[in-house]
This record gives sequence, structure tokens and C-alpha cells, in this order.
Amino acid sequence: MINAGIIGSTGYAGEQLVWILHNHSKVNVKFYSSYSYANTNFSEIYGNYYGVIEDICVDMEEAINKFNEIDVLFIALPQGKSFEITKKALNLGVKVIDLGADFRLNSKNIYENWYGIEHQCDELLEKAVYGLTELNREKIKQSNLLANPGCYPTATILALAPILKNNLVDINSIIIDAKSGVSGSGRNANISSLFTECNESIKPYGVAAHRHTPEIEQELGKISGKNIKVSFTPHLIPMNRGILSTCYASLKLDLTTEYIRELYKDFYKNDYFIKVINGIPETRWVRGSNLCHIGVKVDKRTNRIIVMSVIDNLIKGASGQAVQNMNTMFGLEEKTGLEFIAMAP
Amino acid sequence: MINAGIIGSTGYAGEQLVWILHNHSKVNVKFYSSYSYANTNFSEIYGNYYGVIEDICVDMEEAINKFNEIDVLFIALPQGKSFEITKKALNLGVKVIDLGADFRLNSKNIYENWYGIEHQCDELLEKAVYGLTELNREKIKQSNLLANPGCYPTATILALAPILKNNLVDINSIIIDAKSGVSGSGRNANISSLFTECNESIKPYGVAAHRHTPEIEQELGKISGKNIKVSFTPHLIPMNRGILSTCYASLKLDLTTEYIRELYKDFYKNDYFIKVINGIPETRWVRGSNLCHIGVKVDKRTNRIIVMSVIDNLIKGASGQAVQNMNTMFGLEEKTGLEFIAMAP
Amino acid sequence: MINAGIIGSTGYAGEQLVWILHNHSKVNVKFYSSYSYANTNFSEIYGNYYGVIEDICVDMEEAINKFNEIDVLFIALPQGKSFEITKKALNLGVKVIDLGADFRLNSKNIYENWYGIEHQCDELLEKAVYGLTELNREKIKQSNLLANPGCYPTATILALAPILKNNLVDINSIIIDAKSGVSGSGRNANISSLFTECNESIKPYGVAAHRHTPEIEQELGKISGKNIKVSFTPHLIPMNRGILSTCYASLKLDLTTEYIRELYKDFYKNDYFIKVINGIPETRWVRGSNLCHIGVKVDKRTNRIIVMSVIDNLIKGASGQAVQNMNTMFGLEEKTGLEFIAMAP
Amino acid sequence: MINAGIIGSTGYAGEQLVWILHNHSKVNVKFYSSYSYANTNFSEIYGNYYGVIEDICVDMEEAINKFNEIDVLFIALPQGKSFEITKKALNLGVKVIDLGADFRLNSKNIYENWYGIEHQCDELLEKAVYGLTELNREKIKQSNLLANPGCYPTATILALAPILKNNLVDINSIIIDAKSGVSGSGRNANISSLFTECNESIKPYGVAAHRHTPEIEQELGKISGKNIKVSFTPHLIPMNRGILSTCYASLKLDLTTEYIRELYKDFYKNDYFIKVINGIPETRWVRGSNLCHIGVKVDKRTNRIIVMSVIDNLIKGASGQAVQNMNTMFGLEEKTGLEFIAMAP
Repeated sequence: MINAGIIGSTGYAGEQLVWILHNHSKVNVKFYSSYSYANTNFSEIYGNYYGVIEDICVDMEEAINKFNEIDVLFIALPQGKSFEITKKALNLGVKVIDLGADFRLNSKNIYENWYGIEHQCDELLEKAVYGLTELNREKIKQSNLLANPGCYPTATILALAPILKNNLVDINSIIIDAKSGVSGSGRNANISSLFTECNESIKPYGVAAHRHTPEIEQELGKISGKNIKVSFTPHLIPMNRGILSTCYASLKLDLTTEYIRELYKDFYKNDYFIKVINGIPETRWVRGSNLCHIGVKVDKRTNRIIVMSVIDNLIKGASGQAVQNMNTMFGLEEKTGLEFIAMAP
Repeated sequence: MINAGIIGSTGYAGEQLVWILHNHSKVNVKFYSSYSYANTNFSEIYGNYYGVIEDICVDMEEAINKFNEIDVLFIALPQGKSFEITKKALNLGVKVIDLGADFRLNSKNIYENWYGIEHQCDELLEKAVYGLTELNREKIKQSNLLANPGCYPTATILALAPILKNNLVDINSIIIDAKSGVSGSGRNANISSLFTECNESIKPYGVAAHRHTPEIEQELGKISGKNIKVSFTPHLIPMNRGILSTCYASLKLDLTTEYIRELYKDFYKNDYFIKVINGIPETRWVRGSNLCHIGVKVDKRTNRIIVMSVIDNLIKGASGQAVQNMNTMFGLEEKTGLEFIAMAP
Repeated sequence: MINAGIIGSTGYAGEQLVWILHNHSKVNVKFYSSYSYANTNFSEIYGNYYGVIEDICVDMEEAINKFNEIDVLFIALPQGKSFEITKKALNLGVKVIDLGADFRLNSKNIYENWYGIEHQCDELLEKAVYGLTELNREKIKQSNLLANPGCYPTATILALAPILKNNLVDINSIIIDAKSGVSGSGRNANISSLFTECNESIKPYGVAAHRHTPEIEQELGKISGKNIKVSFTPHLIPMNRGILSTCYASLKLDLTTEYIRELYKDFYKNDYFIKVINGIPETRWVRGSNLCHIGVKVDKRTNRIIVMSVIDNLIKGASGQAVQNMNTMFGLEEKTGLEFIAMAP
Repeated sequence: MINAGIIGSTGYAGEQLVWILHNHSKVNVKFYSSYSYANTNFSEIYGNYYGVIEDICVDMEEAINKFNEIDVLFIALPQGKSFEITKKALNLGVKVIDLGADFRLNSKNIYENWYGIEHQCDELLEKAVYGLTELNREKIKQSNLLANPGCYPTATILALAPILKNNLVDINSIIIDAKSGVSGSGRNANISSLFTECNESIKPYGVAAHRHTPEIEQELGKISGKNIKVSFTPHLIPMNRGILSTCYASLKLDLTTEYIRELYKDFYKNDYFIKVINGIPETRWVRGSNLCHIGVKVDKRTNRIIVMSVIDNLIKGASGQAVQNMNTMFGLEEKTGLEFIAMAP
């Protein structure tokens, strides 16, 4: 059995981690840590655990004291909060999976420019592995410090990797129009996240300025071997969960939808969680699962490729992928504990 | 392994059955039958099964031809459609679990009055067992024909059983104000179920006339040993899933909330799926699970007891309970394949 | 022209008041006051006023300095915040319409028991008129201090007044099961009002303890001439607007739905905003209007009457009724500026 | 007074027309025609008109018989259904405003290719004026046959007109990623429009194939004087109303957000209904109004301009614009009857 600890267990990503690990046959959770709800019964915050998980959330100090009991530490904290704790865990030989943003960008400068926070352990940046499992499996197996990808980057990079790897598009033409449910904003008491402010409306946000932009560009750059700049626009949708990334790029050649779809199917042929579908993806078909559905369509009139990918932002876009990475890091079958089907309706 | 067949697999209750049985360690599904979607790949209707269940839905005739391959038949059809098929299955020694209404009422007359349909095999009514598992476990074990309860009756009977069994309330004072998500209306192309007609609104329906009324009265009557008449008002809520039943009754004695809560906890102490909680239930904490949360509160000013119960209408209110009953009928542990936690947010 | 001031203009009730008064042909708004958004342009908070209302919100001090410019002051503040300001306005001869709870209850004791706040100007309680326009029109005409009713009491009292006035029901049998959209919780940064916490769920709250209970009882008592105790249970519904009040009572006589409906139609025959309908009311048909739809149904099996009323909680349940009262206080036609039809879908 | 008739009054666009015209001071509606609901009281279909509009819907034959009583005919029918009726009305000297698609495209060929319907009165195509009021005001004044724009084209053309008119972008770089509420699908009993199929999900549809594409291209072509091809992807959003069009194009020069915003403000300086805002538009701020909010942002890193426009699809995207056009055709002030503010929350 793998002994795990969770820091930040009462945010939405943290709670989903609890949900997944509870049914994972190879994991024991040793502690649930929470800043806002230390000393509170977990099931008082999330009533779905009533009679199922009745552990008391511990504070950070108590969590740190238990590092010697665990093999892996999941951290689900806001940016800038993971530095010290990561160092402590690594020093004790605990593998770290950080669901936050602190180790995703390889460059200290880029991190500091986009996040406006000083990076306090850039010596670890070289060591950290970017955990988009499908694209980085071998490095993940060796990793002790895993930077779990952002939700938008997960959907987007999976959507664009095959055409970039195959050098099929003009790299200056990439536009990403992404849409997310409100859980992406976290469980914070903000007026802008109130039911009455989000329901019956849609809005773009972070236009040409969202922090996931450099993360997308970094990883697409690695795949293509070129310097990539994209336009990325996220939108807020009145639903709890789900991300749709609609990606546009100009084809260099005159290719058909069928040709490209086959290329995608081949690219992901060994990846259980990636389903290249024949039709158009919808977030509901992946909600509550670790799957990513991808659909492609060539617009013959403009010779653009439109790639549409959907994930559950809290699962493949956060906690599910974290567990997928943990499985990979510990030599388990990648899909262990993650084979649930999306819940519809 | 239990070999199962599903008639009506593409309605919402049918699809949930597929969802649950797919992860059930002791069941093989031998066929998925559908009236509207015969000869269609199941995953074309429900995209969440893409690459997971790619079976072709069979029509009724083909389904019947496969009755000799199965141990249990699940029927999820509208009222009046189960008669012939039930007889055929029983004659072949197949156990039948009917998720519809055709075998729930013990009286042919009451059935015909409320449903406006002639009952074509009332000789089976005596044989049929009402499958509210927690209240009828022993009979269910012996049963070959199981009438799976309606969604509202499940939530309501579980809410009221303890006080009626203990003779604590005036039986003429019972009022049930129930609320359901839209999936309770089924997957039918009705204008009244359109997004634009349901969203941002709430309405009562079937006021003093809903067909679940005699079902509730019949079962409460058995528990109390008395003839029971209730006022039952269902409401339509703009959400996919969930039922809340808010039940009111006048206490005969001056009792406290705490006293009654303890009585409920004791009543359900051996029932894994029933959680008597200390606070107020919310449908989100059971959505996607087979659980029923019950909260109680005495209104001291009027000496009424208010019992509030929540279920997922498609799981404990339909397919989950059907599987719970199957487990019981086949001697499996009752919670096999049903231990998932509600999905929140 | 009537010169008006608004205190608390940036809450939801305040904003709706701005919305209505902007199109009211007889009113000039002299200032918009806000605690949280003083010195902010109103259209920065509510973007729907961009290019329409570009006034800067004033703070309380500045608002008070302008009392000599106004004829009427609308106050939309939380409980306990209206005392001083009301006295100041009345002393200057300004009529006051308080949308909050501070002057609704006639008894200082009851107020203090339910709200847990000391009442600091109970000498005004006798002077205050309860502004359910349809039931209190003559007193409102003479009033200088108007207590605008709560949202639940408005829907509920309108639903029950005719049967209580006519002495048709057992006054000990009244149960009110009410449902409200999330805007009823106000524009406050609470986790429990987040989209992700409210969407896809329903819950009761304030069970047997909600502060609108004594308000309902007080007014029903006046109508019936008797001491009334009710059971009142509000529920939170995943929609922005709307209240449905489902009311149950035992009939003393054997009466038909038609008889009671005619009695209701007669009772409200001179009330433009009250529509007694033949069917079952739905909140969507009054959303965005000052109307109240009422439907009745006798449950012959239990001899109970079920009265269902719907309003828009922010309009007839708050700001629309406030304007209706203002019209009445100033001798205008009651429906001036309030004749908009509900917006559907 | 203008006497008007409405064909197709019970669809969502038709109903919104009724809603607007009811409060229009210069219009009498002489008949409400409906195919599905002939001989039904209008308020039985839309309960918000109870006690307000109690007219009986007439069938087509009766409607045609009343053409001699009217000055203007509004037609809100599906494509291919307006040909005969338009000819009849025009022959009687009645001005026609067609909210459908039959007269929007100037080319019979393009119409037939995209709609798959034979155009039965292409002799009228030359006569028809495309009714995007802000861009075509002078022609509209002279028009007897007005083709009211589609909802997506309205939002999109308004978003792109200023940069195309000023020749600021590479015309081969235009990508339009649009999002619509479900009312855009009309009031039809389709499973894909059910609450349970749309709620908690988002999907693209009509990818690279939507019929509004040639309409957008035709009008952008006129503005720019060039042949334009765009990529246009609509998405379905779980909300009743609203369209957001997020438009991307490559700038020819290095321009700032501020420069372009000023250019937009200048372009629309005489257009009451177009508000160029400083921030990012949200559909809720225009819901229930005839307004269009436009926001612009230059992505300096890619030198793309991102223009975001929002409208209420049923008002500015359909019925409101139809009334705006009627006002223009009859010499009324353009905003008559259309000055309502969006309803929030």
C-alpha cells in the first residue's frame, strides 16, 4: 500500500482527490490537511462523506509532523504556497505531486512575470517533471517532484500535440478559445463566483493575460521543437464542471478530417484515457471521469483544423491526473482507481 | 457471475443501470434492449460509454430470444408495458426486477384507477414483492418478481417509516411536499422538459393527483397497520438529479428533535445506505450515490415533526435500488457494486 | 415629480429599485447610496447600466446631507441598520419605505427574540404600516413610515388571506412549504451562495426557525382575528429569482376547487397585480414582473386546500412592492411604472 | 398607430415580439398567428400573459384574411416557410419584416447550397434589405421587405465591422468562436434540447458548417469591399438567453487596445444600442435588452485583436432588432419601445 498525505484537502481539487483515493485499492490516506478547516471533521465540510470519511482535518504543522509516515504528498494550494513544504517533503524522501502552479514553468523568470510572486526554490525547477501523463510517461516514472498540469493546459496540450508533433500547422496561427465551469475558480467566497452572478451568463476573462498561457506555450514548444506563441481566451460557463478547449490552426497542407482523425487515433492508441471520437465532444460525456474526448474537423473553406477537447477540470484537469501520475510514479497500472465512467445526465 | 438483461436500457433509469452494472464485480450484462434505439450502438446515444461499452442495442424480440441466457431481467419501461415480458421471463425461471409501476400496487383496482390502464396479469400481483430494500429485506430474498419502488415513494417512505412504526404521529396529519430534478420526467421529447421551459423556474405538478400517492399510502399503511391518506405534492426543480421529500406530521406527544433523531438512528442502524444526519439534508450530498440522507426537526411551536429525506432519484430512487435488490435476491452483500460516494460539486 | 433617495442601492433589492424607478415617469432619483461601493460608478457594479446610469454611489453621510432634497427615502439594508436613518428622515418630513425587517413586527419583544437585536426605536413601531398593498391600502395612503414586507410573507399572506378572512380552514393546520431562488440570500460573499454550492442541489434551511415566521403569523392573525401559529419551511432552489409558496390547510367544510377559486377571484377582483389562475402557477410566469399568480386545489381525499402562489422575490417580494407602496402613499395610480410583463424564457 | 400582424407568434422569437410590441406606444397588434397553437388562447401557452393578452391565436388562413387590416407583417417561421406569405403581403402593400432566413442571403445559389431548400421567390432577393440597423439605416428606411439578421450574425458583424471598415486586419485571419443560450434552438420538442441533455454541459455544433456562416461572410464582404471567408464555430451553453461572439483577427499594424477602442466608440457614436465598454462584456448585462456590448483587447504577444460582443439572442438577435427596424421603416425614433434595461440578476 502507498501511504499518502493531502495538503489542501478541502478545496475542490483536494476534495476530488479524497473522492478518488477513497476507492483506490492501493492507497491509504494518512492525513487530510486544511488551512481554513483545520480541526473540523471532513464530512462537516463535504456532507457526501457523512459516515464514510469522518477524519478531522489537520493543520499544516501536524501534517508536516506526519511526513515520516507517508510515501507521497499531494499539495493542492494556491500559487506561491508550495515552496517550503515541497522542500521539507523531498528532504524526507517523500515524493511530491503538486497540483498547483509553482513547479510547472521551467523558467524562474517566466513564473515571476506571470504570477507576480518570487520563486523561492528555483533550484527544484530543473528536477520537477511536468505531469501530462500521456506525453511524459517515462520521465514521470523517475520523478520525485511532479508538477501536475493546469486544467486548461491539460485539455489544450492534448488537443494540439499530434498536429504539432507532426508539423502540420503554421505555428503562428494557433488560437485557443477555452470554456470552463465555475469550479475552476475554486471554493473561495468571491462575489464574482456567486450563483446569482454566474448563472444565466457567459463571459471571457483573463483575455490575453491568463497564467496558463506560458504553460501551454512551454509544453507545445517542447513538442514542436519551436518557440510557440498562442492566443488563449478562457470563458466562464454556468456549470459546475467541465472544460472545453476549441483550438484553431492553419493547415500547411490540404488534409481531410478523416486523415487527421486517424493520425490522432494513432497518436493516442496506447492511452486509455484519451478517446479520439468521430463526432463532436461534449463536456457531459467526460464529467466525473478521468477521460479526455477529442474531436477534429477540417474547415475546407479556410483550410483550418479545429480541434475540440473536453475534460472534467477537477479530474483529468486536476486530481484524476494527479492520481494517474502517482500510479505511474509508483509502478502501478496507470488506470488503477480511475476507471469510472462519466455520470450522465 | 450473474447474467443479466436490460429492457429499456436507453432511458435515464436504464442508462444508470448500465453505469452501475458495468462496475459490478458479479454481473455480466448479456444484452441491452431498447425500443427507440434498437440496432444502435449504445455509445452513440450515451457518449460517456465511447470506447467502454460498444454493444448494439437489441430490439424486444431479440431480447426475448436471449432470456435463456440470463438469471435476472431488469425492466425499465413506462407503465403498462411490462405485463407480457414479465410473464415470459418468469416462465423461463428468470428473476424479474421491474423498475416501472406495473407491480407496485397490490390492488388491481387501485392500479387501474390511478393509471387508467387495464392490468393484464393481476395474478402476479400477489407474488410481486415491493422492493424498498431496507423495509422488506427478508421477502426480497425469496422473491422472483420484484417491484422496484418509485422515486418519490422511496424518499418518502424511508422518511416516515420510523415515526409510523412507532406510532408517534396523527396519521391524518401527514403532508408530503416533494421536489425532483428534471430527469424524473424521463428522456422524452416533451416541450415541458426543454431546458428553456424548466430553467429558472419551479412549479408544482400532479397536485393531489400524482400516481405515486397510492404507492406511498399502501406502504405506509403496511408499516403502521392503519389506513393512511396523505397529501402529496411533487415539484419540478431546475436540476438534473435529486429528490428532496419534506414531510410534515403532528406529534401525539411532546418529543424533542434529539429523541426522534436517536429513534431514527436506531431504526436504520443496520442499513448502510441510510444516513440519519444531525443537520439538514441537501440533494448534492447524495447525487451519484445510492445513499439516502435523513434529517429531522421538531417544530416546538406547533408540535409538528418535519422529516427531510434526500436521494438521487436515478440511483436510490431507481437503478441503484434495483441493484441493491438484485444483490439481496441473489445472496450477495447488499452494497456490492454500490459503494460510490456522491460526486460534489 | 417625486424626489427619491435610495440607501443600499447596490444590493439586489436596491438594484431592482433602481431598475424600476429609472423607467418610472413620476420619480427622480436624487442619490444612490452604498456602504460597500461608496464613490464607485453605479454602472461599474451593475454593467447593465453602462451608458444609462453613470451616477457615483454616495456614502451614508452624503446621503443624509441630501435628505432635504427628497420626498421619499427607500432603505434596503440588513436588519438592525435602519433605526437612526429612519428617525432622521422622518424628522425632516421625508416619507420612509424600509425594505428591511426593522419595522415589520409590531412587537418589540418578538422582534428582539427572532432577530437577536435590540430595537432602538420601538416608539416608531406603532406608526409603521405593514405594506402588503393589497391588504392594507387605506392605511398605506396615510403612512409616513412604511414597512415593506418580506419576500416569503408577501407570497404566503397573499395565498392564505382569502381562506382565513372567510374562516374556511382549521387555523392549527397551516403548513407553508416555500421555495426561493438564490438572490434571496443577497449579494454577499458567502461560500454557501457560490454557484458550485447551489447548482444541482436543493435544501431546506431555517427549518422551524426562519425569521419570516412571526411576520407571517402576525399578519395572518390580523386577517383572521385569531392567534395563528404556522409551520414554515423555506428551501433554496438553483435559480436566480422567484418564490413559490405551497400552503396546506384543512378545510372545515366540504368545498370544491371551483368554489374556492371563485372566492379568491372575488377577493382579489380589484387588485391588478394578483392573478388567480385556473391552473398551477410557475415562477417563470411572474419573473421580472410585479405580479403574483395564485392557484388553488382541493385535495378531496384528505379535504385539504392547497394554495400555491408565485412571485418574483426581488420585485413583488421587495422593490416592486416598495414602488407600489410609494405610488399609493403619493396618490399615484398603483400600477404606475410597474406594468411590465414577465420575461420568458 | 401602426397596425401589425405576427406570423409564428408562439415560438420564442414570436413571443418576444409580442412582449415588446405590447408596451410599444405606436403599435396595435391585429392578430397573433400560430401553426401549432391555432385556436388556443395565447396566455395558455405563455402564462406570463395571463390577464394581459387573452387573444386567440389564428391559423394561417385567418391571418392572411386580415392582411388588409395591417401596415406591417412580422414573420417568425423556420427557413423555407416565408415565400408565399411574403408575396401575398407585399402585393397588398403590407411591409414585411422576416425574422427567418429566407431573404438574408442575396444569392439564390448560396441560399440553396447552405439551406438545402429551393428558393421560391428569388425575384424578391434584390428587393430585400438586410436589417442590421446600425449598418444599413438608410436602406432600411426605404424598404418594404426587410430580412432581419440571424442572432449570431448580429453579434458578430457588429463586432467586426469597425476593423474591417478601417482595413486594420488580415481578412484571411478571422476566426469567430460564438456561444449561445438554448433558446436559440427554438421551442421544439427535441431530445437534444431537454434540460437534462443541456444542463451541466457545453458543446460545439455545426462546426465549419453552420448556416449563419455565409450570412456573416456576405455582410462582412460588403463592409470591407473584399471577399471574406471566416471560420465560425457556435457552441451551446446551459443558459436560456444570450450570445457571446469572441472574434479573433491578425492586426496589420502594431496598434493598442486603447486606439482600437476609441475607433470603435467613434464608429458607433450615434448608435444608441451599441455600447463599446472599457472592460470585458458579459451576456447578463444585456439580457432582456436590445443592447449590444462590445469589448476589445489587443494581444500584444501575437498582435491579434480580440473583439467580444454580447447580445440577447431573442431581442437584439431577433425581435428587438425587428422592432428597431420597424421603427426605422415607419419613421419613428429608432429606440421607441426598446429602452428597457437588462434584467439582473
